[in-house]
Amino acid sequence: MTKAVKIEVISLGDELVRGDVLDTNSAQISLAIETLGLAVWRHSVVGDRVSDIAWLLRSAVGRSREIICTGGLGPTLDDCTVDAVGRAFQLPAQEDPQALGQVARRYAAMGRELDPSGRRQARLPRGAGLLPNPGGTAPGFTLRRGAARLWFLPGVPREMQAMLELHVLPGLRANYELTPPLVVTLHCIGMSESVVQERMRVLSSPGLRIGYRAVLPEIQVRFAFEPGAEKEHVASLVERARSLLGRAVFAVEHSDGPKGDSTIAAVVGRTLLEKGQTVACAESCTAGRVAAAITSVPGSSGWFTEGAVVYSNQAKSRACGVPGRLFVEHGAVSEAVATTLAQAIRRRAGTDWGISTTGIAGPTGGTPEKPVGTVYVAVAGPGGTTSRLLRLPGDREMVMALATGSVLDLLRRRLEQA
Amino acid sequence: MTKAVKIEVISLGDELVRGDVLDTNSAQISLAIETLGLAVWRHSVVGDRVSDIAWLLRSAVGRSREIICTGGLGPTLDDCTVDAVGRAFQLPAQEDPQALGQVARRYAAMGRELDPSGRRQARLPRGAGLLPNPGGTAPGFTLRRGAARLWFLPGVPREMQAMLELHVLPGLRANYELTPPLVVTLHCIGMSESVVQERMRVLSSPGLRIGYRAVLPEIQVRFAFEPGAEKEHVASLVERARSLLGRAVFAVEHSDGPKGDSTIAAVVGRTLLEKGQTVACAESCTAGRVAAAITSVPGSSGWFTEGAVVYSNQAKSRACGVPGRLFVEHGAVSEAVATTLAQAIRRRAGTDWGISTTGIAGPTGGTPEKPVGTVYVAVAGPGGTTSRLLRLPGDREMVMALATGSVLDLLRRRLEQA
Repeated sequence: MTKAVKIEVISLGDELVRGDVLDTNSAQISLAIETLGLAVWRHSVVGDRVSDIAWLLRSAVGRSREIICTGGLGPTLDDCTVDAVGRAFQLPAQEDPQALGQVARRYAAMGRELDPSGRRQARLPRGAGLLPNPGGTAPGFTLRRGAARLWFLPGVPREMQAMLELHVLPGLRANYELTPPLVVTLHCIGMSESVVQERMRVLSSPGLRIGYRAVLPEIQVRFAFEPGAEKEHVASLVERARSLLGRAVFAVEHSDGPKGDSTIAAVVGRTLLEKGQTVACAESCTAGRVAAAITSVPGSSGWFTEGAVVYSNQAKSRACGVPGRLFVEHGAVSEAVATTLAQAIRRRAGTDWGISTTGIAGPTGGTPEKPVGTVYVAVAGPGGTTSRLLRLPGDREMVMALATGSVLDLLRRRLEQA
Repeated sequence: MTKAVKIEVISLGDELVRGDVLDTNSAQISLAIETLGLAVWRHSVVGDRVSDIAWLLRSAVGRSREIICTGGLGPTLDDCTVDAVGRAFQLPAQEDPQALGQVARRYAAMGRELDPSGRRQARLPRGAGLLPNPGGTAPGFTLRRGAARLWFLPGVPREMQAMLELHVLPGLRANYELTPPLVVTLHCIGMSESVVQERMRVLSSPGLRIGYRAVLPEIQVRFAFEPGAEKEHVASLVERARSLLGRAVFAVEHSDGPKGDSTIAAVVGRTLLEKGQTVACAESCTAGRVAAAITSVPGSSGWFTEGAVVYSNQAKSRACGVPGRLFVEHGAVSEAVATTLAQAIRRRAGTDWGISTTGIAGPTGGTPEKPVGTVYVAVAGPGGTTSRLLRLPGDREMVMALATGSVLDLLRRRLEQA
């Protein structure tokens, strides 16, 4: 990436710094910037106080080349970005005729008369360049201070996004030699983040940035290659990574390749669709999360027909015909019950595959032999039934999420063999 | 509020500054700090680079009294917070025996051997005070530099939250004369955020701050009263708010009252438990999300027995006896099918209540009469069956989340009447 260009994002607003509202603008701006082959290195948030904003702007100009600010441009008195810019750079605010025209037209279009507070939005710091706002009343503006350029956009996410694409991204493209990086992402499951890290250590090389991201139940490994990296080099490195991670890798994405949903549920779904096969699930401890994961993929009615959430033992017996003696002999959390559930739902639904979970999600219900986190998952299909015993870490939600990923992963491995 | 104490929050991680993951920790910390009667004045995010982190930490120490940092404490190589602290303050990292013991115990409990990368988590800057992590492997630590105190917590939100409450909040309480504001939170469902805000506008008054948070499918309204606000004033204002919002309000929490899980699923669960009643669900378009929501509450086996995910029409007929003619006469997305599903699952499971969903989550499947977002929910129970037609906004996941909240809300309203 063109790391040379230091870009930072500043979000302004009491509601953000107080935690009442999540700052989504900064992340949206970072994602948009990255597609250009540039990177945002810093986010900052302060409230609606002229002195705090002025201080932040002055220090930003000293450390970044491009500074993108959102918020504080509205009609109310706590919208004080223009005054803060004035304080920071000795640029008194003055009413801009062109800006006034745009604000007046917006108000007219809304059938509202332009009161003094509405008129405040036409004030710009002296020497600033107007950035028209196609979707709202408050215009933005841009400004140069020494080597730095500042962009000021409204805080309303929809208006910010529109002005980012209309003004900021073209402005950056025009100013820098951009070569988008090649990023290869390996999606892994069934291996802890630290184990993945350990295995990837041998691959570290100059000009390669390896990043890791845990998105339960997955671990994503991102290889960012310097622009101009040789195809052979990239291919051989990705191949080495795959062999080091083995079957934990269930999807590989190239930033210059087709974009797609690469969750374990999406990959399993696509495979089933290609094979023209279907799946149904019987869940005890995951209680609907497996069905929810499968159906989070659009078009899932093409491979998923039904699921049974058999939380109580009676439900397990009635809905999936689990014989009462199994509970006595093995307990509800057992390989015997998991395999019976998978086979029963497959038979009942008439699908190619039946998958199941049974376990102890906690916080209570654990025993010395079967502590919280003990989960059995099973997959029944062409070629028989496979099951796996898991000892999962974390709290109730984490155990449920990992169990959901594990049964989908077990199905994925069966599908690869089939 | 004790505004005098300058508190800032720093979040560390490439995934945050790149926009891959939203920084929710900073907002959570700001909200928790506010309950003490203090205020966070600044948030900052930088990636996993020692020099950037060190620079940010040094400048933070010059401008704030309390600095709360999250992230970069894990086992992986890009977790470099300890090294950045070393760089910033010339405090070399060293393995802390007590920390090592805690990390080792966590690994043993998970049945994993402590590899070198796992062991990295026991490194602390010289002179730092260990902050045990009850919910994860990476311990935190605290540090004083001149007048400033720094707190370092893991980035995993669940672990961060636990350690914030265990270490940071008590540490702040012990250090400052605090007069916590009274914060009253109204949990609402079934009303859009803009409608909620519109209705609350008439309540704005000096000394009262009203904040809004959308946590799908809920909207939370937070009233923060100046310390020393009169009980009568608070009570009457909350009463007015409740009457303005009507039955959309399903829970009210006072910051000086008992803490509890106030999600719609938890409130419904507690009510069922009090009444000694049970529920089962039959889901089409939500496909497991209703069962998942109900079972996200610990102890839910006390009121939930089973669910049927009837995604295909065949499943609706076989599992819940929906007559084929209903699909022909009304379509799968219809009041007739919704009510049949609710009644059937109630009968089959032998529960007091049966609840159901059927609808079009999209992106495809919409028609002019039944566009994407058309959902029927139904509740069958003592006193008959109620259903509701919903026209839900948003994408597939949002429609599913809102439909899940709506059927639980319909059950909540029935339980209030019963």
